[in-house]
Amino acid sequence: MGVPVWGYYPAVPTRFVLTLSCPDRPGIVAAVASTLANLGANILESQQFDDPRTGRFFMRVLVEPVAGETIEQADLHGAVAAVGKRFDMDFQLRRADAPYRTILMVSKFGHCLNDLLFRWRNSGINMDVAAVVSNHPDLEPLVASYGVAYYHIPVTPDTKSEAESRLLSLVDELDVDLVVLARYMQILSDELTARMSGRIINIHHSFLPSFKGAKPYHQAYERGVKLVGATAHYVTADLDEGPIIEQDAIRVDHRMTPEDLVRAGEECEERVLAHALRWHCESRVLLAGDRTVVFS
Amino acid sequence: MGVPVWGYYPAVPTRFVLTLSCPDRPGIVAAVASTLANLGANILESQQFDDPRTGRFFMRVLVEPVAGETIEQADLHGAVAAVGKRFDMDFQLRRADAPYRTILMVSKFGHCLNDLLFRWRNSGINMDVAAVVSNHPDLEPLVASYGVAYYHIPVTPDTKSEAESRLLSLVDELDVDLVVLARYMQILSDELTARMSGRIINIHHSFLPSFKGAKPYHQAYERGVKLVGATAHYVTADLDEGPIIEQDAIRVDHRMTPEDLVRAGEECEERVLAHALRWHCESRVLLAGDRTVVFS
Amino acid sequence: MGVPVWGYYPAVPTRFVLTLSCPDRPGIVAAVASTLANLGANILESQQFDDPRTGRFFMRVLVEPVAGETIEQADLHGAVAAVGKRFDMDFQLRRADAPYRTILMVSKFGHCLNDLLFRWRNSGINMDVAAVVSNHPDLEPLVASYGVAYYHIPVTPDTKSEAESRLLSLVDELDVDLVVLARYMQILSDELTARMSGRIINIHHSFLPSFKGAKPYHQAYERGVKLVGATAHYVTADLDEGPIIEQDAIRVDHRMTPEDLVRAGEECEERVLAHALRWHCESRVLLAGDRTVVFS
Amino acid sequence: MGVPVWGYYPAVPTRFVLTLSCPDRPGIVAAVASTLANLGANILESQQFDDPRTGRFFMRVLVEPVAGETIEQADLHGAVAAVGKRFDMDFQLRRADAPYRTILMVSKFGHCLNDLLFRWRNSGINMDVAAVVSNHPDLEPLVASYGVAYYHIPVTPDTKSEAESRLLSLVDELDVDLVVLARYMQILSDELTARMSGRIINIHHSFLPSFKGAKPYHQAYERGVKLVGATAHYVTADLDEGPIIEQDAIRVDHRMTPEDLVRAGEECEERVLAHALRWHCESRVLLAGDRTVVFS
Repeated sequence: MGVPVWGYYPAVPTRFVLTLSCPDRPGIVAAVASTLANLGANILESQQFDDPRTGRFFMRVLVEPVAGETIEQADLHGAVAAVGKRFDMDFQLRRADAPYRTILMVSKFGHCLNDLLFRWRNSGINMDVAAVVSNHPDLEPLVASYGVAYYHIPVTPDTKSEAESRLLSLVDELDVDLVVLARYMQILSDELTARMSGRIINIHHSFLPSFKGAKPYHQAYERGVKLVGATAHYVTADLDEGPIIEQDAIRVDHRMTPEDLVRAGEECEERVLAHALRWHCESRVLLAGDRTVVFS
Repeated sequence: MGVPVWGYYPAVPTRFVLTLSCPDRPGIVAAVASTLANLGANILESQQFDDPRTGRFFMRVLVEPVAGETIEQADLHGAVAAVGKRFDMDFQLRRADAPYRTILMVSKFGHCLNDLLFRWRNSGINMDVAAVVSNHPDLEPLVASYGVAYYHIPVTPDTKSEAESRLLSLVDELDVDLVVLARYMQILSDELTARMSGRIINIHHSFLPSFKGAKPYHQAYERGVKLVGATAHYVTADLDEGPIIEQDAIRVDHRMTPEDLVRAGEECEERVLAHALRWHCESRVLLAGDRTVVFS
Repeated sequence: MGVPVWGYYPAVPTRFVLTLSCPDRPGIVAAVASTLANLGANILESQQFDDPRTGRFFMRVLVEPVAGETIEQADLHGAVAAVGKRFDMDFQLRRADAPYRTILMVSKFGHCLNDLLFRWRNSGINMDVAAVVSNHPDLEPLVASYGVAYYHIPVTPDTKSEAESRLLSLVDELDVDLVVLARYMQILSDELTARMSGRIINIHHSFLPSFKGAKPYHQAYERGVKLVGATAHYVTADLDEGPIIEQDAIRVDHRMTPEDLVRAGEECEERVLAHALRWHCESRVLLAGDRTVVFS
Repeated sequence: MGVPVWGYYPAVPTRFVLTLSCPDRPGIVAAVASTLANLGANILESQQFDDPRTGRFFMRVLVEPVAGETIEQADLHGAVAAVGKRFDMDFQLRRADAPYRTILMVSKFGHCLNDLLFRWRNSGINMDVAAVVSNHPDLEPLVASYGVAYYHIPVTPDTKSEAESRLLSLVDELDVDLVVLARYMQILSDELTARMSGRIINIHHSFLPSFKGAKPYHQAYERGVKLVGATAHYVTADLDEGPIIEQDAIRVDHRMTPEDLVRAGEECEERVLAHALRWHCESRVLLAGDRTVVFS
């Protein structure tokens, strides 16, 4: 049967991913399972969570037609919408082989970008890199070697608003689902983050909520911590306060200078961002207020 | 609603845990979910797995009655048995507050025993320690301080068979579900392991399949590995070859002697065994041939 | 020859541990090494660090007499003092088999206490547990089973000052080198922490500087972090701001309640505190301003 | 002062790295320290190890001239050689800014190659990539984007001997210190490995000694392990038995297919190989028989 899970997402065109949330009450699972069964949709993966904090129920289901049958997305959508109405559900239904169209943004540190481009091409992250946007020209050759368009959009206090307009135009023109700040060092405006809520992922180079703001490795050095970390989170108007998707940390010691921490942290940042992105693009991350549910 | 999961298992008397496996085919989830819904059983946790290797489907469900209703275990059992027949299911149904009656076995290294006794009393591992059995008298005071019976059953080549008979008598008399070899250094007979298949957990002090057999830390030292580990597994007739439940590893370096490795490894052994035991006693571990499915 | 390092400290009576710090300048290592060689002291372990932040040099050396000779501590002390004067050194010289006399303090959560008592008896932490002090009576039976004196010193706002006086009396009477707050939930006065500067170790149940103060696991739950941690640090007048000795973290997920985090964090707290204590008692931790140098 | 340590190696031209080993006996440290002090060489880093298994003493020292002075490499070499003779030392003296000239070898999996090329250019691994050699043409574009020569040397049973001759010619022509098998899937001949003993590093995609030989992730899947790992080791005539430099492991679970393990393991392989290579190129790895001393 082959239920693909972690780390590899085969984009089988006949499979669908359903994610939903609604106020918690009895009978949701049975109603969803019956609805799917009635359409000939076999459940390959199913994960659920009752959140005591928000009182909401969350679910993610991967289905495919039983052998010899086919399922139209519209039919599936209609059937789920009908049962969803009863339970006051928010839901999303996607073909499992529909990649998330993505813009990667970067400033000068290219390690996350290099890692994501390579994994995208070689390990099946379920995304299409529609473009790379940077406020610096430095990483154009790397991006060009992947045949991806590179937009150099400089940002100064005077041009910031215009730069964001260009970004939003690109999001529209390129039909983009997701923007990834892969060590992009400019702060986005509240307007932009509000408009793209839940669709911008940032990698912050500290183990949040420690060391918010600028130069977190230098802050970590001053405090004398014995681990440094990285945090992938959705961007909100509150800087470094958005819902956390993934974190990890690595050991450091007294011998390491701030510059050593910067370099040692790179591999942690790469890993954390790659995992968060992989999960987001497999529809494994749901928002529960200011926290995330990650059906990893 | 509060679905407790990892690390803490509230023994709510009205909750039931259902675990099942059967040949994989469409419709199992819907059938199970409907059956439970029809009895007024609300699904709190649900996890499933289609195993491509064995062609079997595995599921674990935690249910409780919808508000204001009650469910008799016999009724639930009957309903699941009926649907289970159709799908050729093996299933187990337990009250969520029914502790696994357990015998802990130990030789001279008491770190795992000390850790398990303390966690059992203070952190709600879902077990009853019915007795401790040892081939040495050394750890009796520790066990006595917990008010648990200590059976000193020495083992020599001549008395081994008799010792195992005494153990089996204890298993019967004390109505024991599970035997845990918490650094018990005697090898059990094939007869005993066959008779208690899936009900004996051992902690091996290496990262299996590396360093089977005696003195694994000394083997690790000789090979010059940079991590040492521990493995909790079900005991089978093939020494150190049983299905693995949990593993972990810690860093070591060239400076450490075999004795250092022994001591450093202790905390890894404790952690791995405690996790495996916790999961087993929450019915989270299912056997899939010679591998395990762990719904952690 | 056997230089034991991590995790096991053989208390060889003829060995000495020298730790020192001084303003950094050329020639220190050579001067120390020659001085030791001239006394017939063979260097078994040597670690050093030039701290660019404080401009100071730190060193730890483990020595023993060359075969067939003996070394008097007073002679060694005199020789080091002489060369130390030239370099303006702070230094400490201890017999390697001289245990740190220690008071363990605890409130109601006994997991760290249980772990430390067991390891102390079985794994050679280089300390003598002179007494356990608690503001609650609950853990007396556990402590009694180790034959250690238990002082129940309740603390209320009215009696806090008196309670600290009793503690200080015990420190004097029992000739105590070190006080360990093994989940002791009262805040010590500035006066006490100043008086015992560098001699009180606390385990804080978060990954500092995140989640200072009360109920860190509840804070972590609210923030939705994906790792929780623990921090062992020297206690200073600034609550949860003292120099960090050791930290570690473990993965958690959205399913876990604050109570789950509390329980999951226990094993992290135990491990972090045990490591910090082991290193302190082997004279491996030196203070470099508000950070530590850990020659692990 | 700035003692560079982990993760970042400033190639200061006036610094030298001295590594040495000799039969253990008293007085080595003092003799070396005095010798260096007499030449005006200030010790920035110093690490040592007495190996009870081989009876040998190992040391690594990083020095620079005291302020205002200079040191000629020949003078330093001569002084060390003189004292080394007395202690029967093997030693190596390198300028700290002398990169290791390196050939990277690869077959079709390019993740380690991509990671190493990026880190080399951006994070200061102390090497020069003299060439990339592959038995397949696939990765030429990636290598070309770094301006590095790519030699496609196909290997068949018939041409293996010739292919190794070409490799050895390259090693000579390009004055190569080190060959890195960055997922190169051909087995080298005993002749070649003997000739380049201690100068070939391989990344094996399992946690050795588990799962030697072909398809280790498939072996891991069959065994049902809960962690998979990677091992960087020096290549010897005994396949997958050479001295281990570095290992790490990551968690996996029952849901993952062999293909998932392959992909999940990639980041572990990258990290382990990058660390091993970084340490080797900072002269931090010494051979102690069939084990390594890693002064990380």
